Amino acid sequence: MIRRPARGRPADPAIDGALRRAALEVLAERGWRGVTIDQIATRAGVARTTVYRRHGSLHGILLMLMGDIYAQVPVPDTGNVETDLIALMRDVAAVWRDPDHVHYLSALVAAQHEDQGLADAYHAQFRHRRDATTAIVTRAITRGELPPDTDADLLLDFLAGIVAQRILLRRDSLEQTFPETVVTQLLRGFA
Amino acid sequence: MIRRPARGRPADPAIDGALRRAALEVLAERGWRGVTIDQIATRAGVARTTVYRRHGSLHGILLMLMGDIYAQVPVPDTGNVETDLIALMRDVAAVWRDPDHVHYLSALVAAQHEDQGLADAYHAQFRHRRDATTAIVTRAITRGELPPDTDADLLLDFLAGIVAQRILLRRDSLEQTFPETVVTQLLRGFA
Repeated sequence: MIRRPARGRPADPAIDGALRRAALEVLAERGWRGVTIDQIATRAGVARTTVYRRHGSLHGILLMLMGDIYAQVPVPDTGNVETDLIALMRDVAAVWRDPDHVHYLSALVAAQHEDQGLADAYHAQFRHRRDATTAIVTRAITRGELPPDTDADLLLDFLAGIVAQRILLRRDSLEQTFPETVVTQLLRGFA
Repeated sequence: MIRRPARGRPADPAIDGALRRAALEVLAERGWRGVTIDQIATRAGVARTTVYRRHGSLHGILLMLMGDIYAQVPVPDTGNVETDLIALMRDVAAVWRDPDHVHYLSALVAAQHEDQGLADAYHAQFRHRRDATTAIVTRAITRGELPPDTDADLLLDFLAGIVAQRILLRRDSLEQTFPETVVTQLLRGFA
């Protein structure tokens, strides 16, 4: 018996891999203003209908790419909040040192401000990720490294924020000392 | 004698005012992916050639809008670093509570990642503004409120960054207590 793939999204990692690479390349070359699903399909060597069937739209591709990025940055659990956050920020910095990733993020920002449905989907994806990283702060509170009333969202938004400021607005390349510098400075105020 | 306006950019604040409003409206409605200079010209009731002559391109309009926003946020000098930064962040929050401004900023982010010329022009505009806000930190060091080796760029990027994180990525509306909360928290680590 031949196993039939699930309707709508047949399991074929090779197709999604080709689409990921194609989407990043086309976004880097043409930007959010210039990209189309046809260009991504052509670059990936995949039929346009296949892209629509698997991801629904350009928005679906943008969300898949953010899922990939989150997957590249595991949530550390080293037993110390400073070491955890520096490890996290090192992986974050590695992701955003790739200019193609920054082009992609700038497109996601513009896209979610154009479409409420995409904004809602991205928000859900972000919330899920934030729940995972919040564990770093919760564990630090349990160990007595941070006060019980620590605002985890504020702390993590300061970290995510300075990355956004540097890569999206200042187009900075995040120097090697960036993770240690920002984590050490920030924890001085929270501890 | 009739005074002739300078070539290229005749002084007519009414035209630029109409273009500002039109650009913000069209960006809010159609996003960076959908906006054209024709739509802005039509909405403003101005000839397309007038827009090109005054601003060169869509990019010129994006830069004009950021200049307007900076002009809406004066650099405070109250004699105290905490009061200065809270006053600054209150004005910053007021600007970004307008959804049209956030749509505009998301377009600027995408646009500068598509075009190096725009990125360079925006970077020069940003640097000029940052030099002005750095005075808040310099004065605080002189008064002994902050250590002499305070990294002003790091401090101000943390503040700008958490705004970017909240409005661009989380689409948050910046609660009333936001300016006090972020400034108080951040200064605890820097002082």
